[in-house]
Amino acid sequence: MSYFTEANSVDTVNARMGESTDPRLREVMTGLVKHLHAFAVEVNLTQEEWEYGIGFLTRTGQMCSGERQEFILLSDVLGMSMLVDAINNRRPEGATENTVFGPFHVADAPIRQMGETISLDGKGESCLFEGRVLDLDGAPIEGACVDVWSDNADGYYDVQQPGIQPKWNNRGRFFTGPDGRYAFRGIKPVSYPIPDDGPVGQMLGHLGRHPYRPAHMHYLVTAPGYQRLVTHTFVGGDDYLASDAVFGVKQSLIAPYERLDGADTAWCSPFDFVLVRG
Amino acid sequence: MSYFTEANSVDTVNARMGESTDPRLREVMTGLVKHLHAFAVEVNLTQEEWEYGIGFLTRTGQMCSGERQEFILLSDVLGMSMLVDAINNRRPEGATENTVFGPFHVADAPIRQMGETISLDGKGESCLFEGRVLDLDGAPIEGACVDVWSDNADGYYDVQQPGIQPKWNNRGRFFTGPDGRYAFRGIKPVSYPIPDDGPVGQMLGHLGRHPYRPAHMHYLVTAPGYQRLVTHTFVGGDDYLASDAVFGVKQSLIAPYERLDGADTAWCSPFDFVLVRG
Repeated sequence: MSYFTEANSVDTVNARMGESTDPRLREVMTGLVKHLHAFAVEVNLTQEEWEYGIGFLTRTGQMCSGERQEFILLSDVLGMSMLVDAINNRRPEGATENTVFGPFHVADAPIRQMGETISLDGKGESCLFEGRVLDLDGAPIEGACVDVWSDNADGYYDVQQPGIQPKWNNRGRFFTGPDGRYAFRGIKPVSYPIPDDGPVGQMLGHLGRHPYRPAHMHYLVTAPGYQRLVTHTFVGGDDYLASDAVFGVKQSLIAPYERLDGADTAWCSPFDFVLVRG
Repeated sequence: MSYFTEANSVDTVNARMGESTDPRLREVMTGLVKHLHAFAVEVNLTQEEWEYGIGFLTRTGQMCSGERQEFILLSDVLGMSMLVDAINNRRPEGATENTVFGPFHVADAPIRQMGETISLDGKGESCLFEGRVLDLDGAPIEGACVDVWSDNADGYYDVQQPGIQPKWNNRGRFFTGPDGRYAFRGIKPVSYPIPDDGPVGQMLGHLGRHPYRPAHMHYLVTAPGYQRLVTHTFVGGDDYLASDAVFGVKQSLIAPYERLDGADTAWCSPFDFVLVRG
């Protein structure tokens, strides 16, 4: 039996776990303690910094409510959300890459006919989104559900503005036919800041970082027999592509936005989704 | 410019800091991101585990109030509080070791005469605490302030039981004379559980750990020209010495408790404190 010292701290803490601790919990906690302690030792964390950290975590927790999840924001801006997403969605070459789900998805959006619009407030630059849902061999996937959502022209999701935006504004679900094709009309999304009036926004300020996300359309693509795909397509040329506050951008997810000369629709953004069996 | 990947995640996040970021903040955040990401990769953190972690941190923050600091408890039971204490109080051989301050100190406790009692509720086994405050050469330190506090015989500090315990029960300050001696009467402290009705207590349960601290007397010893000493003396033989929930025990801080045959006082616990200049 040895008592806690700076040198044996990790082993001393981890040795305290009971024998019947769930093996996976043991593995996760062992790693957490190891890395937390290594962090404190490496930076020679001072007592005052530790106190500041306790206060920061406390304020972050107390900022959380039914409508606001400040710890997810913290995870997002530290790249943890994207890292966990990457770890859990390693895919073969050619498959569409995942990116963060984000907090604004709403289940059971209206099912719409191919080509229908999801923009209900009449704001923004109209855009046709179209493409195919394919497997890794390039074969179309029938019966895939393409669940889409985006902000409106003011940079807000409908759930952020209940009573201001129509319910289900810029949301919808589309089911592919035998050709695997999807098509819907929406608006060219706009960049927007993540909520930055809390501790996380304050932290971004101290780090000289802005809170903006580049414009993107969200996709949740599912099909029986295939892995679920959670991703965005980003608007090429957006000012914030290289500095997304939550690190969600991947080169392969930057979509073309082509000007159309048609009367109704200003833009067209073609994009194919490639799913992996599993 | 490269976008975020699992392989470059640490560098991508840390490169985002602005050039005018405070150098120390940059150092601390760089280390934090590095170790948080290394943790997630090493344990292959799943999306569900990440969600559980977000929820856990949220509940921990929302448990905090003016009287309850659940994040300090979390830090305590993960050994982080003791580690930060150790990092910031590396001392030469022969100096009394530090241990955690704990949440129950109250500034400006009554100044008492040497030998006076701090036990005001008449409960518990009486104990004489005595010894000297010395420098590293063994010379007595005059004018040292020995600020002491302990739980009562039921395992509660006075501030946990306002209206039940007398104010300043088991607290006091004693100033040494030219001989460096201190002496006061109190009670032999008893072991007690840290508050375990919140998320941290639940976590201890999942880890097969109990919430108890071995019995101890708190000391804050200060003297002009010397480093501040924050420590406890532990009651030798306590059942929880080898399993302190917050890892506060050090071999050198286990004090003798000797039976006295005197009528008034049941125990005597001698202990010398050795301070470091600075």
